[in-house]
Amino acid sequence: MRLPLSINSLNEVVRVHVMVCSSMSQQEIWIEELKQFLRIPSVGTTPEHAPDVRRCAEFTRDLLAAAGLHNVGLIQGDGHPMVYGEWLGAPGQPTVLFYGHYDVQPPDPLHEWVSGPFAPEVRGDDIFARGAADDKGQVYLQIKAVEQLMRRDGKLPVNVRFLIEGEEESGGEVLEHFVASGDPRLQADAAIVCDTEMFAPNLPTLCVGLRGIVYGEIHLRTGATDLHSGVYGGAAPNAIQAICEVIAALKDRDGRIHVEGFYDRVTQPTAAERAAWATLPFNENEYREKEVKVSALTGEAGFDVFERTWSRPTLEVHGIRGGFIGEGAKTVIPCSAVAKVSARLVPDQRPDEAVAQLQAAVRKACPRGATAEFKLLHAAPPSVVNTGNRFIECAAEAMKQVFGKETVYIRSGGSIPVVGLFDKHLGIPSVMMGFGLPDDNLHAPNEKFHLPNLFRGIDAMGRYLELLGS
Amino acid sequence: MRLPLSINSLNEVVRVHVMVCSSMSQQEIWIEELKQFLRIPSVGTTPEHAPDVRRCAEFTRDLLAAAGLHNVGLIQGDGHPMVYGEWLGAPGQPTVLFYGHYDVQPPDPLHEWVSGPFAPEVRGDDIFARGAADDKGQVYLQIKAVEQLMRRDGKLPVNVRFLIEGEEESGGEVLEHFVASGDPRLQADAAIVCDTEMFAPNLPTLCVGLRGIVYGEIHLRTGATDLHSGVYGGAAPNAIQAICEVIAALKDRDGRIHVEGFYDRVTQPTAAERAAWATLPFNENEYREKEVKVSALTGEAGFDVFERTWSRPTLEVHGIRGGFIGEGAKTVIPCSAVAKVSARLVPDQRPDEAVAQLQAAVRKACPRGATAEFKLLHAAPPSVVNTGNRFIECAAEAMKQVFGKETVYIRSGGSIPVVGLFDKHLGIPSVMMGFGLPDDNLHAPNEKFHLPNLFRGIDAMGRYLELLGS
Repeated sequence: MRLPLSINSLNEVVRVHVMVCSSMSQQEIWIEELKQFLRIPSVGTTPEHAPDVRRCAEFTRDLLAAAGLHNVGLIQGDGHPMVYGEWLGAPGQPTVLFYGHYDVQPPDPLHEWVSGPFAPEVRGDDIFARGAADDKGQVYLQIKAVEQLMRRDGKLPVNVRFLIEGEEESGGEVLEHFVASGDPRLQADAAIVCDTEMFAPNLPTLCVGLRGIVYGEIHLRTGATDLHSGVYGGAAPNAIQAICEVIAALKDRDGRIHVEGFYDRVTQPTAAERAAWATLPFNENEYREKEVKVSALTGEAGFDVFERTWSRPTLEVHGIRGGFIGEGAKTVIPCSAVAKVSARLVPDQRPDEAVAQLQAAVRKACPRGATAEFKLLHAAPPSVVNTGNRFIECAAEAMKQVFGKETVYIRSGGSIPVVGLFDKHLGIPSVMMGFGLPDDNLHAPNEKFHLPNLFRGIDAMGRYLELLGS
Repeated sequence: MRLPLSINSLNEVVRVHVMVCSSMSQQEIWIEELKQFLRIPSVGTTPEHAPDVRRCAEFTRDLLAAAGLHNVGLIQGDGHPMVYGEWLGAPGQPTVLFYGHYDVQPPDPLHEWVSGPFAPEVRGDDIFARGAADDKGQVYLQIKAVEQLMRRDGKLPVNVRFLIEGEEESGGEVLEHFVASGDPRLQADAAIVCDTEMFAPNLPTLCVGLRGIVYGEIHLRTGATDLHSGVYGGAAPNAIQAICEVIAALKDRDGRIHVEGFYDRVTQPTAAERAAWATLPFNENEYREKEVKVSALTGEAGFDVFERTWSRPTLEVHGIRGGFIGEGAKTVIPCSAVAKVSARLVPDQRPDEAVAQLQAAVRKACPRGATAEFKLLHAAPPSVVNTGNRFIECAAEAMKQVFGKETVYIRSGGSIPVVGLFDKHLGIPSVMMGFGLPDDNLHAPNEKFHLPNLFRGIDAMGRYLELLGS
């Protein structure tokens, strides 16, 4: 099936579908349309996919138009385009800004996929494809929620704007520039960020806290050139040995981070939060065996898994490179090594302080005969949302009504920089109403989205707008 | 100038040279011929250079023939050919086996070379090219020493055999198989290994000790797949963190190796050796600044540089790889990492024991949630030669006569596996009579050979054969 390249052709396709498959249910039609969305390999980090990314932006624009939104179009900055649409026909009612992204992570390693990353396939209750959960499936459910209301009522209970970006996975700065620009299209009372996950398939949860991040590289150097380990072994400093000593010094085997001042501003979760977390269904052994798939969990001694992954800061090494890494043996004493590291930050840590602390700690941990520097690549502050906020309360209520259970407030250990941007530049809270699941394989082979969550997500999002407007 | 491809054409070239450049001295002729040898990019590790390696073997064969040796030819095994030649016309006299290699290290990084690695250039007293010192220059001086005696006397004072291999830099097993084969062409009383260096330009030194080596890889794994550091940071083990902890645990910041039993068999140098080393011209600051080019020397506390590089064992990391090492940021918790490491061994350490000790130490140092294995790539025993041996005594005397100074016995921190092979399979001592210098940039850009050492090497090697035969 060819992909629709304009609003008309999309409508055409949907109509043809409905006509040809007259027995298709609404849910089946949604699945078919979502598959079209998922078939576009909108890998934003790879230049050869640039035309696909563009095509995916246009597809998203057409979805917005088909839902009945106005002023739909692409907003072109320095990188991949953002997609915009609005419906502002509810004067006196609040305005919500829907955020999501249509770009996806690279699909490597390809050989580990059961079905092709861009050949979406439904197996059981899940749809498998790159971007299924992160974030096309969730963008799709936002749009369909609005479309359902528009079809039923011809109008919406609140004002809505959509801003769907194409650089979330590539860390581009187009969105930040736009959010900071004061563009009137961003005037809103709250943002709805549909890019997080629920705690468990049948448990309504709302994410009200995110960790921040400071991501950078440790560059370590010992001398001008690599040396022969026979001739100089025993006298010359070794850059890999030294960077390993630095990394081992920054965090001990009990998970404690040895960076001076790093924990000074760390706050504890509230008693109410702890109480909520205690109600979550969680079996540490099952989590370790089936989800993390390791022989032992690690992390800071004295804190449970929720604390360690949600409310405690971390220091992780993401990559390391130094010396001779080809096949076979080379007896070189390397003179330089690089490691990529990040710290996840929690309230009330500040990225700029953490950067300075890391820089000082790396220098201090650096052994004799070597120099080491921490160089920042990017940073985002941590955030917690006030649960007393009406936009959060309505979201919790909508989730409760659709899932039939009390909504639990949780946090996420990840970082969603856009939440910080909305706070900083627009002064609005973000409601992280996400429908992913922990086993969705984000950024990994066999990414999937749980179809019951697609349908309940459409319902919950629609109910949310109704509650906000009532 | 085209390279000679047969004995006749080589003689042709030399004759033409002598006729055309009638004003050329013998030394100038040698330099021109050595340049031809150095122009052949005989990089044994790179398949695309296989024809060059072959051509270089043929060139070496032609040099042997031109020197008046008999039964010259290539010995073909599974890899690059060995070159053989002999002169056995001195019945009752000892037989020496000259060893060297015509293959060279890869020239990378190319951009750091002042002149091309295979475009030999004389600057000052040095000739610059890949292989100039390691080992073509030294192979060349052995051959020319024999040629000089043959030209003068029509015969040699002792019997000689040459075995010049082509897999020294690639670690092939052709030589080992041949040495172990019992081939009668290897019958000799001592080997002359011309692949080491002198301590200083004008100081005659003989290397009488080598370190052994155990080279392998540490493979560390934590789980089945890489994980997202936002979601699992604080709970999941990190393979890079773990391998850094292992490496930092195996050797402390004072250079002490924490491998159980590792030092048990280590012997101290004799009082005579220490006394000899104390006479060597050595300024630690100058060594650090001008030779090693680092801000501080490292290594085992309580031992001087000679001990640390010659008579103490080491543990070095040669390469490390894990996680995401591309441009930019990826927030992955890696599930595997690999490091290449080697231990240099000294008398009386045994490679098989050291391997077992390293395997146990790596397992013991491995943190919770990870498994780590040391996998052996290759090993060679350490060796020391008895200086009371006549082959050593004559070499020391020949060096003394040519350089005009007493010869000092030193050791080398490197490993020359062939010395162990000659000892094990042929039962003969090796005389390590080398003419390289510490600043020859072996295995590095701008490799060079000191031309005065080429000429004195030819003299000393000839004098050695005369002393042996007298």
